[in-house]
Formats: sequence, structure tokens, C-alpha cells
Amino acid sequence: MVSFESDYICGAHPEVLRRLAETNLECLGGYGQDAYCERAKAKIARAAGLPDAEVELLVGGTQTNAVVISTMLADYEGVAAARTGHVSTHEAGAIEYTGHKVLELPQTDGKILPEILQRFLENFYKDENHEHMVFPGMVYISHPTEYGTLYSKEELTGLSEICRKYSIPLYLDGARLGYALASRETDVTLPDIARLCDVFYIGGTKVGALCGEAVVFTKRNRPPHFLTSVKKRGALLAKGRLLGVQFDALFTDDLYFRISRHAIRMAERMKEIFAEAGLSLYIDSPTNQQFVILTNERLAELSKRVAFSFWEALDENHTVVRFAASWSTTEEDLEALREALLAE
Amino acid sequence: MVSFESDYICGAHPEVLRRLAETNLECLGGYGQDAYCERAKAKIARAAGLPDAEVELLVGGTQTNAVVISTMLADYEGVAAARTGHVSTHEAGAIEYTGHKVLELPQTDGKILPEILQRFLENFYKDENHEHMVFPGMVYISHPTEYGTLYSKEELTGLSEICRKYSIPLYLDGARLGYALASRETDVTLPDIARLCDVFYIGGTKVGALCGEAVVFTKRNRPPHFLTSVKKRGALLAKGRLLGVQFDALFTDDLYFRISRHAIRMAERMKEIFAEAGLSLYIDSPTNQQFVILTNERLAELSKRVAFSFWEALDENHTVVRFAASWSTTEEDLEALREALLAE
Amino acid sequence: MVSFESDYICGAHPEVLRRLAETNLECLGGYGQDAYCERAKAKIARAAGLPDAEVELLVGGTQTNAVVISTMLADYEGVAAARTGHVSTHEAGAIEYTGHKVLELPQTDGKILPEILQRFLENFYKDENHEHMVFPGMVYISHPTEYGTLYSKEELTGLSEICRKYSIPLYLDGARLGYALASRETDVTLPDIARLCDVFYIGGTKVGALCGEAVVFTKRNRPPHFLTSVKKRGALLAKGRLLGVQFDALFTDDLYFRISRHAIRMAERMKEIFAEAGLSLYIDSPTNQQFVILTNERLAELSKRVAFSFWEALDENHTVVRFAASWSTTEEDLEALREALLAE
Amino acid sequence: MVSFESDYICGAHPEVLRRLAETNLECLGGYGQDAYCERAKAKIARAAGLPDAEVELLVGGTQTNAVVISTMLADYEGVAAARTGHVSTHEAGAIEYTGHKVLELPQTDGKILPEILQRFLENFYKDENHEHMVFPGMVYISHPTEYGTLYSKEELTGLSEICRKYSIPLYLDGARLGYALASRETDVTLPDIARLCDVFYIGGTKVGALCGEAVVFTKRNRPPHFLTSVKKRGALLAKGRLLGVQFDALFTDDLYFRISRHAIRMAERMKEIFAEAGLSLYIDSPTNQQFVILTNERLAELSKRVAFSFWEALDENHTVVRFAASWSTTEEDLEALREALLAE
Repeated sequence: MVSFESDYICGAHPEVLRRLAETNLECLGGYGQDAYCERAKAKIARAAGLPDAEVELLVGGTQTNAVVISTMLADYEGVAAARTGHVSTHEAGAIEYTGHKVLELPQTDGKILPEILQRFLENFYKDENHEHMVFPGMVYISHPTEYGTLYSKEELTGLSEICRKYSIPLYLDGARLGYALASRETDVTLPDIARLCDVFYIGGTKVGALCGEAVVFTKRNRPPHFLTSVKKRGALLAKGRLLGVQFDALFTDDLYFRISRHAIRMAERMKEIFAEAGLSLYIDSPTNQQFVILTNERLAELSKRVAFSFWEALDENHTVVRFAASWSTTEEDLEALREALLAE
Repeated sequence: MVSFESDYICGAHPEVLRRLAETNLECLGGYGQDAYCERAKAKIARAAGLPDAEVELLVGGTQTNAVVISTMLADYEGVAAARTGHVSTHEAGAIEYTGHKVLELPQTDGKILPEILQRFLENFYKDENHEHMVFPGMVYISHPTEYGTLYSKEELTGLSEICRKYSIPLYLDGARLGYALASRETDVTLPDIARLCDVFYIGGTKVGALCGEAVVFTKRNRPPHFLTSVKKRGALLAKGRLLGVQFDALFTDDLYFRISRHAIRMAERMKEIFAEAGLSLYIDSPTNQQFVILTNERLAELSKRVAFSFWEALDENHTVVRFAASWSTTEEDLEALREALLAE
Repeated sequence: MVSFESDYICGAHPEVLRRLAETNLECLGGYGQDAYCERAKAKIARAAGLPDAEVELLVGGTQTNAVVISTMLADYEGVAAARTGHVSTHEAGAIEYTGHKVLELPQTDGKILPEILQRFLENFYKDENHEHMVFPGMVYISHPTEYGTLYSKEELTGLSEICRKYSIPLYLDGARLGYALASRETDVTLPDIARLCDVFYIGGTKVGALCGEAVVFTKRNRPPHFLTSVKKRGALLAKGRLLGVQFDALFTDDLYFRISRHAIRMAERMKEIFAEAGLSLYIDSPTNQQFVILTNERLAELSKRVAFSFWEALDENHTVVRFAASWSTTEEDLEALREALLAE
Repeated sequence: MVSFESDYICGAHPEVLRRLAETNLECLGGYGQDAYCERAKAKIARAAGLPDAEVELLVGGTQTNAVVISTMLADYEGVAAARTGHVSTHEAGAIEYTGHKVLELPQTDGKILPEILQRFLENFYKDENHEHMVFPGMVYISHPTEYGTLYSKEELTGLSEICRKYSIPLYLDGARLGYALASRETDVTLPDIARLCDVFYIGGTKVGALCGEAVVFTKRNRPPHFLTSVKKRGALLAKGRLLGVQFDALFTDDLYFRISRHAIRMAERMKEIFAEAGLSLYIDSPTNQQFVILTNERLAELSKRVAFSFWEALDENHTVVRFAASWSTTEEDLEALREALLAE
């Protein structure tokens, strides 16, 4: 059955896999001390327009969020995030497990608007009891958001300026960053992100790798003895090459962006098909994930022919479901989707 | 200057202090292994109508919440609380420090309404991704709430039934429990609470003790080796007698309730004075804390003559402030308040 | 029955209790924001010969260790301590609960010798794999140690110099500091400790208070937003006055040292009685705790007439027991001990 | 340069890599919900002689130790381990990060002897203060140990019986389990381990996989909602297939054991070469790691021609170094080693 369940339904992009095979017999240092990790980091720093940036490779998204947030916060601080942020809802409490609170802010289309952040920080410091409260020590945003939406350069600049005013880092979760950068509706580039954020990560798992996320510290602000903190959290790979080789491949010959652009094209096609089938979008996502409203009957029917994923119940009779495109989505898959929808 | 800043501005109620002095030279076992602790626990269990209840004495409120919540939750669970709950906002992240998330629910007058809890739990288990989320493993309520309001017996029964249906404990934070029980507007008794909750605590610090909170496990559900877990959290007093003697005194000759009733009478008088002075209440509290709206000018003026505490900014020109009554509030204090208000 | 079970068998020294009573009705700020806390802190700083020192008041010893250690260590660090240190053995894992390892070092009479520390640190940094290990980020010593023994000024200076060489703080647990300072066999003064240590605490609970420990940060090195970190650990008292008034009393008219000297005199008398009774000391303690070896039969017999405490099994037939003197130990108590021992 | 630095210097065994390539385009469920994970788990359970065993796949060794230990311990418990155990020394405090102490026991050749364990547990429960101490809640052993040594079936049975007597689980860290099972000097089989231990893991990373460790819960004792706890620790892979496909390959056609036997043969050859070169072994290891004593001059010389790894300084002039064999070690590698050693 054709599947749009997620952007991690297949293995690695063939070029990534090929590089793993080609380098397999080379003897390399462990724990990320190898030439591929070095090369990958340098390529990423260059792509970000910050040759001096400190880049670190980790295994998965929740792990990356927990490591970055907990090593950058002071003891008395928590991280501010949209109420719908991945760290707020879908990481099983991984941030709290590190002893820090997620300070949940109201969201708009999955985003924290600059004025909301400004008001929150202002009110915090005005509150005479704030020493009894968790200090906001970082702002977490995801881009694309959990709803596939994007920050504009103006919004990102606004958040960045507020963070600087309050001397707290702005952290961008880029689990699907490629799709944000490849979207036709964005005015934000990778160097913009590197300039505006204090730390962010470039997701590999959902953009063609078997696993792997590349964290970029943009201000020479990598926490000291980071490797030890990574190890302490059980996040250090013995065969760090697995990450180095993959990211080296992804940042060679524009592969990361080719993968992303392909998925965006497929998602745009998908959107046309939904329109043709008379379906409503739950939210108008300009990235690789599409959120569609189905009646529960249609959902039951469609799920016999196409795989997609449950998002949330809308009301008694309607459900929001998600269709994701990735490097492995093909024209044939889309045609199968079209037929399934129109056949009903 | 006369002060209504809080219900912990003075030391201990004189009868409590007298008992500390009278027992001071007795040689007693350490770490709560003494006759006064035993006696206090037995009296509390009897007052709760549950002679078999397990009672434990701890030092402060935030500590008690952190100890109880973290020892009763399973690894994959968090605690559901009103967004305005003390554990959500004013404990500096003490719950998260134990590695568990506070799942914040919408509130009404500081309370979690049964229907809100029901919907939240239903939705959680319906969500196909709930294994990636923090499981609700306990419900935390405060009574009185942070706004001085009270659950009705019907509401408490509703919450209790939902908790039982989902097999999660209902935990009541009774930092100011005496004032709830002594309120003229309550239909909830201490035995009701003991029957409907799985665990709760009876606050001493804010009801006449120097320090001390008595936790009541109502279902033989005290976590195993509780003393060790208390010690591990730095919460075990060497001279446990300090807690035992105080609670023994508070539960002798109805002292805990006499203190509470006195404060309620003072608070009611206070409310009359506010009405006389033409002030609006922010919320109509039937307990010992009164929340009043002042213009910022009046606030500045009044604070020269009377001490009270900042609660929250209402808008540009108005502030909510809190006046608290306690065992030490006198008729003279009230008269001074009245004069200060009418003099303006 | 006369008791030497511990130095916390009675309540507070009468002068301490008197001050609590005298100040009871004063209206004071909460959470340690009161004049008595301020005054106590100033007196302690002066007694330590460091008027600029930052002093903080906490409730108990394990709590103090956990708060100080966890707020001063970096993420990748642990605390080095003697294998017999209180934090290593008798705090139920309170340090590990904060996420940090106790690095256990070999001990001599309860002490870490400077050469042992030097070798440990040297070897750590020589180890090519040390980035995979817990960094030593603090040295914890207790003075008196858990065996009642004392560091000489030379030893303390040695440890201090090594710590400075490696840029890690030296932390001294002074749960019974008074008895160390009052010992006839010490050449270490309170200002010496303040000069040689980066942080230490002056124990109140075991030297005449109901509860309370005063932490002294000697190098303007108090962690930022310390109150928030204290609150986060459930260690902030609402009626902070309880600590302020007590320490103010203890540091008025030399009370802390009078109490300590009395206990030392009683302990010396005790030692003479043990010699008279032909008992062997397990270790020759110059402070208020005496460790005696008893045959198991004699132990059973003696415990019918005198209360003392189990320390550890020495072999099949012998047990080490502890006798402690305190402010409340009297000549009559000692006479009763003598009679009990000689009567056997 | 020929390398014996570790058993993770190369990528995956070619058969493992081939299976990753062959399955790469299949659409599979995420988070370990796929047919390869299921198949791998079933094969592992069968190989362990416990078709009912619960098997879980994780990414790395330190992660696995932290997840297993922290989800199986009660709040008041710690894990007992040899002082040289991996969890005690080389995991950067990953266990303590979960809030639990590692209780370090004396070791013999890297092993905990049954009599040592018995005495430790006995003494713990005899100690009258044990409620103030960390309860031993699990026993951790590694097999092979960090020194390449092995438990005999008698020793393992002894440990197992003691654990059962005290009702605590026995946990075996099998990061290199294949090499233990393939050693000519072992009398312990995989089913023996499954029978005698309550939980253990079969290491993939160091036995031919790119990454991956398979945890086996042998007594239907997998902690509830294990996936959620794994996610909470940042240890859940989105493309869980990466682990499933690899373990499926390793447990097909005896591959895991073929890899292990090959490495053992290479290690035995290595040992002969060391003897021929007149080198002393630091410890006589019957598994794939060999620990050799070199003078510091010889070490400097040899390291120009062969890569190996530093183990520990023996004395001023000698160093212990480690040579590891793996699936990728060849006869040519050994010949190069021989030449390098004899050439000196």
C-alpha cells in the first residue's frame, strides 16, 4: 500500500547509503573523532555562512532537544516554547527529565509571535514574585512548526531581537529544516537562521538520513566539555562515522536541498489532489506535511488504500490527518493517492 | 506598620510555641522516630476519620509537593494541574526538577472542573500518539486554590470518580486547608477530603506552625521506604520532634480549627471594609485571602500605611493585591486597615 | 534513661528558644527576607573574618550538601569525597539525585589526605579517556569527619592549594563545625576555614538549634539566583525567620562556641570514663563524638541502662558504638554512664 | 596504518550492510513498529532459549545501561557494580544523571565475586542506619568484563542465587557478549545467561553492527510503557528499522557468532605474537581484547606503525595498552603487527 505516513518511512536516500557502503571498511576513530565528521561539520558551517560555527552531530530529534536545552540552561531556568511545540507535547517529558520546565506560550499556527514573547518576558520580570518562578532561559521554536508552517524573516528577526534584549538564546528545532528552506513561500535562508539564532539543528532523519541531527552553535557558545555531557546523556555513538558519513553525503552536491525540493514539489502536487477531491486543509502548510480534514467515514474508507497518519480529532465526526512527502515519494505514489481519493 | 502581607508574617501560634518549650529538654529519637510524631500522626488520622491512614510530616509546601508527586508517579507519568496551580507556576520548577512534567489544564477560578479533567483524560487515551506523550499519572488540586476559592463536595466527588475510573491518584494540596474547612461557604469536611482523595496534606506553616506539613496517605498507599526517599530529597529533619510537637499541639483541643475560624472571621470583616471603601474584589474568596483591585495610585498611597502583597497586574492602571488574615490578625489591625482606606 | 545517642536528642539551646519566643509576634518578611536573617548573616560573616562573605541559611545537612554541590558543579562534573564521607554513604543518594556522581576517594581516619587528592587529579587528567569520565568539579570534606577526627591546618592548606591549582572549589561540611573549632587538638580557626575553603557550612542542628545550617560562600561565588535554586529543591522556608532568629542567637555572646566547648569538655570526661572502664576506642576522636568498641554481650547489657548508637559491626563479636555529647549533656549524665559501665 | 584500536573501528559487517541496502526502499512503520524489529526480537528470544522473552532494541551501550537501570530501580535504590565496571567509571556519570547511585564493590579481574556480593548485601541489611542509605536494587555485571575476563557458570550461578535471595534483578552488560560466548574458555551459553539473569543486553555496536544493542527481559519484567520511558530519555529512533534490520541480519545464519568466533581466533593469534615478542600481558583475557604492558619507549615506537589504545598507566615507565580484534581484523593485520613488534 502506498504510504504518506511520515517522512521517515523509507531508509536512507540512495546516495547516503552508497557513501556508507563505500567508506565501510575504512578504519576510523570512534566517538565522532574521524575525518568524515570533521568534513561534514565544515561543510555544514560553510552552508550556514558561518565557517567558525561549532557543529555537533547527534542521533535523534528528541535527544538533540534534550541535550541542547539542558546543557545551555542555567539551573534556575526553563525553556519557553509554543504550547504545541514538540518539546511541549510529543517528547514524553524529555525536557522535564533533565530537570527543566517547558514554559508553554500561546501559539498561532504553531508559532510564537514576537509580541507574545515580548509580553511574556516583560510580565515575568515585572512580577514581584518571579524569583519563585522558573526563569525563561531560552526560547525554543520549530521551523517548520509541528503544523508545517513557517516563520517569516520578519518574525524570526523579531524573536531574535527580543532574545538578545533579554540575553537568552534563541533555539530553532530544524527536524525538517530542509523543507522550510526549500518551500516556495519562505523568505528565510540557512544563513539567515544561522545569523538570527544562537543555536539550531539541521534534521537528517526526516530529510534522507537513517538517523542524525546536526547541531550548529552559531556564537562560539557550545557548552564546555560538550562530549562529556553528550556521553552523560547516553547520546554518544561509538561509531560516530555513521553520522559523519551521512551528513558529509547530505552536504555534498546539494543533496540535502535536492531532497528537500523534491519533497516540496510532491507536497504541492498533493495539495492540488486534495483540492481536486474537494477536501479541506486543516491548515495551509507550505512545507512537506499536509494536514487534511476527513469525515470519519472517509477516513475509514481511505485508510484501506493509502497509509497516512492520525493527527487529532477535530470534532465528533471529523479527524485531522497528515500526509507527508519525502525523498522517496514518487509520481506513482501521488497518482495512487489521486485514484484512491477520486474512486471513493 | 500593620501587615496583611501573608499568613506567615508571624511566628507560631502561642500554644504551639509553648509546647515546643515544654518538651524542649526531653530526650527523643531523631528523624521523626519520637512519641510526639507518633501522637500527632494518630490525632491527624483520627481527625480525618481514617484511623488507619499513613501520615508523614514534612517541612514545607513546595518540598511536600515535590516529594509526594515524585514518589507516587511512575517514570512515564506526569501530574495534571490547573494552569494557575502552585506546582505549575510558583515552585520554581520543583516538580520538573524531579524529572516529571506538570500537565497544565485550563482553570476556572483556580479550579479544575470535572468536565475539563474528563475531556483531557479521554482525549489523551484517544490520541494515537499518546505513547509519545507524558501519561497523566496524578491529579493535583489545591484547596483552597491559589485564588482562595473552594471546591464544592460535588466537584470534589466528580474529580475523585474520574480519577478512580482512570486509576490515578487525586492529590490535594492543603497548604491552607484549615481555612477551607472553616469557611462558611464550604460543604466539604476533612473526612470528605480523606475519603475522596488518595493523598493530601494539611498545611501547618500557614496555619499557626513555624513550619511543617502533614501528608495523609488515605489508601495504605504510602510509597515504600518513604523515609529513604524523603532523605534522598534532603527533606528529612534530624530533630523531627520540631514537626511532631507542633502538629500534636495543632491537633489538640481543636487548635488547628480555632486558628482557622479566627482567620476566616477576620477575612470576612476585611471584605466588609473593602466594600465600605468602595473597592472591587478580583475574585470572591470565601477563605482567609482576599484579592482586591486597586488603581496604581491608590496602591502607592495605601502601601505607605498598610502592608499587603502584589498579586498580578490587571491592566495598565490597575493591580490585583492580596490581603491575608491569620491567627495573628487582630481587630486593631482591621481598624487600622479601615482607617487607612477611608483616610485616602 | 540517660542518652548519648546523638547531639540532636534535645530541642534547642534555651537561649535559642528564648529568642524564638521573644520575636514570635513581630511581623517579618517571608522567605528569609527579614532583619534577623540579615543580622545572623552579618554576624557569621564577621565571625569568619570575611565581612563580605555571602551567607545563606538552609534547613538541614543533607539538604545543604545537595543544594551547594548541585548548584556549584557544572553539568559534566562530580564531587570528590572520602569513601566514608556523609555524602558518599549516609544521604540516601541525595547528591546522585541531583544528577551528579560522588567520586569516592580512599580515606584515612575519615579524611582525604592531600597526596591522595593530588594523585587522583593528576591521574584523571593524564587518562586519555577522561572525557568519557566524570570530571572532578569540587572536593568535599567534612570537619570534623564522620569519625570525629580533624584536619590539621597543614592538611587543609594542602587540600586548598591543590584545589586552587586545579581551579575547583573546596567545600567543607561543618555539620558539627563548632566541635572542631572548640577541640583542644585543633590548630584550625574559623577564619582559617573561611580563607582556605571556597564554600563551607556552619551546622546549627547539631550545635544547639532546632534546625538550620549556615552556608558561607567565601569568594563572592554564590551561584546566581540562589534563592530560586533553593526553592526549586524544595528547600526554601516560608518562615525564614526560624533560621534567622536561631543563628542570630547562636552568634550572639559567643553562644555557638560556648555550646561547643561544653560538649567538648563532656566528651573528654567521657573518654576518661571509657578508659577507666577498660574500653578501647575505635578511633581517637578529639571532638564531641566518641567511638568505642564493645563486645556484643557488653553492648546488650549496657544498652539496658544507657542510650547510645550503633556505628558499625567490627567483627563477629565486637561492635563499634557512638556516644555523643552536646549542649544538653550534664555531669549527671556522665556519672550515670560511669556507674552503668562500672556496675557491669 | 593497521589498527587494533577498538572493535568499532570499521563500519558494519558486510552482511549487515547488505541487508540495510536490500530493505532500504521498503515502507515501514516508525519507532520500532516494523516487521524487521519483530523478526529480530523473535530470533534473539529463540537464541536465548526463551521464546517468551521481551526484547527491546536500543542504540548504544551507555544509553542502554542508563535506560535499563533507571527504569528498573525503585526511587530509593541504586545499582551495585564492580568499581571497575563501565557504569562506574566510563559513562560520564550517566547512571547518576538518572538520579541513582552506583554502589561500587571491590572487584577481582573486573568481576564481582559472589562472596563479595553476599557480604555487601548482608552488611547492608544489618546496618541499623540502612534506611539512610541507598538500597541495593540491582546488580550490574559486564561479561566479558572491562578487562576481557569472563564469569564462570559457577560464579554466575552464585550471583544469580544471591540476587534471587534478596529479590533484586541481576543485569548483565553484554556490550561484547558475542566474544564471551565464542571464547574457548567459557562454560557459559546464551541460554545460561538468559536463565540466570533477569535482564541483559546483546551488544551489536562492537560485534558487527553500525549501532544497536538488544535488551532481553527474561522474566516478563519489562518496565510498563517502556517505549515512553525510552522516548523520555531521548533514546527512541524514528527509523527503528535501522536496529531491526541489523539485528535480524546478525541473528540470521549464525552471523553474530561467526563474527565473534573470527575475532576470538584473531585475538588468540595476537596473544601468540605478543608472547613471541616477549611482551607481558596485564591480564590474561580469553576474549577479543588483549591488554599488554609496554615500556613507554616501546609504546612510543610501536605507535608509529600500529594503532592501539591507551588503557592505563601502570607505573612511571610502563603503560597498559589494549589491542582489540573484531570482524574486520585480518591475517594481514596480524602479520603487520608481528612485523612491527619484531622489527623494533
